[in-house]
Amino acid sequence: MGIAADVKAALVAAVGIANAREDADARLQYGTDALLRGAPADLVLIPGTVEEIAAIARLCHTHGVPLVVRGAGTGYTGGAVPVRGGVLLSMERFDRILEIDEENLLAVVQPNVLTGELQDAVESRGLFYPPDPASLKKSALGGNVAECAGGPRAVKYGTTRRYVMALQAVLPTGEIIRTGSKAVKNVVGYDLTQLLVGSEGTLAILTEITLRLIPKPPVAATLQATFVDVGAAVRGVTALLAARVVPATIELVDAGSLQAVERHLKRSVAPAGTGAMLLIEVDGVPGGVAEEVALVDEACQSAGALAVQRAATEAEREALWEARRALSYALRASAPRKINHDVSVPRGRVPQLFELLARLEREHRLWIPAFGHAGDGNIHVNLMVNPDDGDEMTRADRAAQELFEGVVALEGSISGEHGIGFAKAKYLSLELAPEVIALMRRVKAAFDPNGILNPGKIWE
Amino acid sequence: MGIAADVKAALVAAVGIANAREDADARLQYGTDALLRGAPADLVLIPGTVEEIAAIARLCHTHGVPLVVRGAGTGYTGGAVPVRGGVLLSMERFDRILEIDEENLLAVVQPNVLTGELQDAVESRGLFYPPDPASLKKSALGGNVAECAGGPRAVKYGTTRRYVMALQAVLPTGEIIRTGSKAVKNVVGYDLTQLLVGSEGTLAILTEITLRLIPKPPVAATLQATFVDVGAAVRGVTALLAARVVPATIELVDAGSLQAVERHLKRSVAPAGTGAMLLIEVDGVPGGVAEEVALVDEACQSAGALAVQRAATEAEREALWEARRALSYALRASAPRKINHDVSVPRGRVPQLFELLARLEREHRLWIPAFGHAGDGNIHVNLMVNPDDGDEMTRADRAAQELFEGVVALEGSISGEHGIGFAKAKYLSLELAPEVIALMRRVKAAFDPNGILNPGKIWE
Repeated sequence: MGIAADVKAALVAAVGIANAREDADARLQYGTDALLRGAPADLVLIPGTVEEIAAIARLCHTHGVPLVVRGAGTGYTGGAVPVRGGVLLSMERFDRILEIDEENLLAVVQPNVLTGELQDAVESRGLFYPPDPASLKKSALGGNVAECAGGPRAVKYGTTRRYVMALQAVLPTGEIIRTGSKAVKNVVGYDLTQLLVGSEGTLAILTEITLRLIPKPPVAATLQATFVDVGAAVRGVTALLAARVVPATIELVDAGSLQAVERHLKRSVAPAGTGAMLLIEVDGVPGGVAEEVALVDEACQSAGALAVQRAATEAEREALWEARRALSYALRASAPRKINHDVSVPRGRVPQLFELLARLEREHRLWIPAFGHAGDGNIHVNLMVNPDDGDEMTRADRAAQELFEGVVALEGSISGEHGIGFAKAKYLSLELAPEVIALMRRVKAAFDPNGILNPGKIWE
Repeated sequence: MGIAADVKAALVAAVGIANAREDADARLQYGTDALLRGAPADLVLIPGTVEEIAAIARLCHTHGVPLVVRGAGTGYTGGAVPVRGGVLLSMERFDRILEIDEENLLAVVQPNVLTGELQDAVESRGLFYPPDPASLKKSALGGNVAECAGGPRAVKYGTTRRYVMALQAVLPTGEIIRTGSKAVKNVVGYDLTQLLVGSEGTLAILTEITLRLIPKPPVAATLQATFVDVGAAVRGVTALLAARVVPATIELVDAGSLQAVERHLKRSVAPAGTGAMLLIEVDGVPGGVAEEVALVDEACQSAGALAVQRAATEAEREALWEARRALSYALRASAPRKINHDVSVPRGRVPQLFELLARLEREHRLWIPAFGHAGDGNIHVNLMVNPDDGDEMTRADRAAQELFEGVVALEGSISGEHGIGFAKAKYLSLELAPEVIALMRRVKAAFDPNGILNPGKIWE
C-alpha cells in the first residue's frame, strides 16, 4: 500500500534523513529474522532518542501506518518482521548499558544491548544475569523481554520474565510511560511490566529495561549422562528432582540430534548405543555443589545410565557444552530446511511427547530430531525438510498440526520460548479458547486502539 | 442504593436461598477485613460452583450491581471489602486441594484453600510452596494471588507471582476462562495469568489456581545477628549478599519493634544495647548450608555485629521465629491503633528509609516502629496512634503522606505486599503517572466494561 508522501516526509524528519532508509537493500535487510520469511517495510527508521520514537508512534497512530520494532532480528517466529509494510523501527542505536548497581543488584540497559554483553559485564563484578537463550551472543535484551526468552538455566533460574523489574516504553499512541520500579517488591496497580514481557512487540515499544541481578554462583559442575533411550533419561531427571536437587540446567539430546552433532563436530560425543543424553550442570557454593554432584550421579545411575561423566577441567566442560551449542547448527547442516518448534509440556510427560514424535516420524515419513530443556519440559522439535519437495512440505504441515494438537492434549503449550509471531498464528486457537483470544484483543486495543503496532502477529 | 427486588431475587436464585444472606450480622461480618474499615454489602452470596459465579457475574454486569469477591478477609488495604454496597461473593465453599502432582511439581487448588494448609500438604511429600505471608495460617491462596502476597522467603524464592502457572477465572461479563498451562514455560499470547496476579480482585474472579512447587530444601539453619543500629544491620545484609549468599530469609527488626516484642513475650530477645536485629535463615543441601552459615556469620561480624547466634536445636529455632511472628501482635498490643504501611525501596536504601522514619517520628511526635524483609527492601512501617486523638491522627496522616513521597523519591514503591485497595488509593498518583493510571483504567475496561467488579479500589 505504501505510505503517503507527506506522512513519509514527517516520519523521515522525525529521525533525520541520515537515519532513514528506503532503498531495496535496507528494506530487505531489515525485512526478515531467523525465520527467513517476511515482507519488507516501506521505510526503515533508526531513531536515537525516546522522543523521536514517540513522534514516530504518534504519526503512525494518526495516519494508520503499520509500525514494527526490530532489535537484533534473531527471533524464530517473525515477531520483529513486517508483514504489512509500513515503518520498520530499528532500535540499533539503543545499545548502551546505562547502569550496573552492585548494591541493589540491578542493571539498567537500553533494549539493543546484547544478552551476552550484559552477562559479561555483570559477571566480571561477581553478579549474574541467568537467562541464556542459545542466541545470547547475538540476541538483544529488548527482544528477550518482548518474547520472554528462556534457555537451559530456566529450570533453576526462571526465564527473562523473572528478571524484569521496570520498563520505560512508548505507547503506540505516543505517550512515554514507566512501569515497575527499582524495588524488588512492588504491587502498586496492575503489573504492566509483566504484561509487556512476552507481548511480542504488539503493545508498546521498549526503550529502557531495568533488570534484577543475582550473586554469581561461586562454582559450577557439569555432568554428561547417557541412556539407552529418552524414557530412561527422563526417569533420571525425575529421580534427581525427587532427590531434591535443582540443577542449573538439565538438557536432553535425542539420538537423531546426537548423530547430527557427531557428524558436524567430526568426533564422538557419547558412547555407542546411546539413545539419549543428559547434560546437567549444578552450581552454588562448593560444599553444596559437591553434594549435588553426588546426588545427580546417584539419580542417573538409579535410572540405568550407561555412563555418567563429570567434566574435570574447564576444557572438558567446554567440550560438553560445545556439543549442546552446536546442535542447532549441526541440524541446520543436515537438511535443506529445519523447521524448529519449541513446544512445552509438563515435565513428566516428556516421554509421551517423544512417543508422539516417533509416531509422527513414521506416519509422515519425516526425520524429526529433538532436544531441549528436559527440566522444564520445553523441547525443540525439528522438522527436517526440503522446501522444494512439495509433498514433504505438506507432510511436515500435517505433522506440525498433529504435534501442536498432541502438545495441547498433554496440557502443554505450543510455544515455550519463541512466541507466536506470524509463524504460529494459525495454531493459536488450538491452545487458547475464543473468549480468551477476544479478551487479549481487547487488551491490545487498550494499548493500541488503531492497531498500528506490529499488526498481523499472535492472531491472524 | 440497594439492589432492585427482581435482580436480588435472581441473584439469590443463582446460589439457592440457603447460600444467600442479607441479615445485618452477615453484612457486617463479611463487610470488613484486617483493615477494620468498609461498608457492608447489600447481599452476601456463597456460591458452590463456577457456573453459579458466572451467573452472578452476568446478572451484576447486566444490572450494574457492584460485585466484590472475598476470600479469608485477612487483607490490610480493604481489597476484599465492599465500599459501594452491592453483592459480596464469598469463596468459602471453594476450599479444596484438587491435585498435588509430585512428578510435575505442581498443585491445583480452589481459591479458599489456606496458604499454610497447602504448605503442610506438600511438605509432607517433600515438596515446597515458598510464599509465606505472616498471615499464612489464616489467609487464602486466592487472596494471596489477588494481592501477590510476599513474605520473608521472597528474598530467595520470590513472591506468589513466581508460582502461579495457570488460572481458571470468571470474567465480570460472565465468561469462564482458563489462562496459562501446566507447562512451566508458556509464551502463547499475552500473559493474562501474570496480569491477574496482583490485580486485587478488580479484573476477574479466580476460581481455580495451578501453582508451581519446588523440592523442599532438605535442611535449614537459622541465625540471629544483633547490631548497634539499623545502618550496621543493613551493612551486614550487603556484606552477606556480597559474599554471594542468598539466604532464604533476611528479616530486620528495629529497636522499637524489639522492645514491643520483648514486652509482649515477657522475655529478652536480644542483648542489651541492641539497636537492630537480623533474623537470617539459609537452606539447601547440608554441605551448602554449613558453608553458607559460615559466610553469614563472617559477613555479620565484618559489619560489626554485637552477637551472632545460631539456633542449635529446633526449639531454639522456634524461639527465634516466635519473636519475629509475634511482632505484629506485640505492636498491636502497644497502642490503640497500628497503621501498617508495607513500603518497599531498593535494598541499599533501607538506611535512608530508616533515617526518614526517624525524622518523621521527631517532626510529627509519633512512635513509628518498623521491621520487615531487609533482603528485598520491603519494610513494614507502623504508625502507632490513638484514633480518638484527632491531632495525633492528623499528624499520622501527614507522616504517611511524607513517608510515601520519601519512598517514591528513593525509587521505591508505596506497597510491596499489601496492595492499594481503597486504603492507599489516594496515594496512587504519588507513584504512578497520569498516563499510566489512564492505561490501567483502559485495561480494567477491557475486562470489566461496566465497572462492576470491586469498584472503588486501586484508584478513587
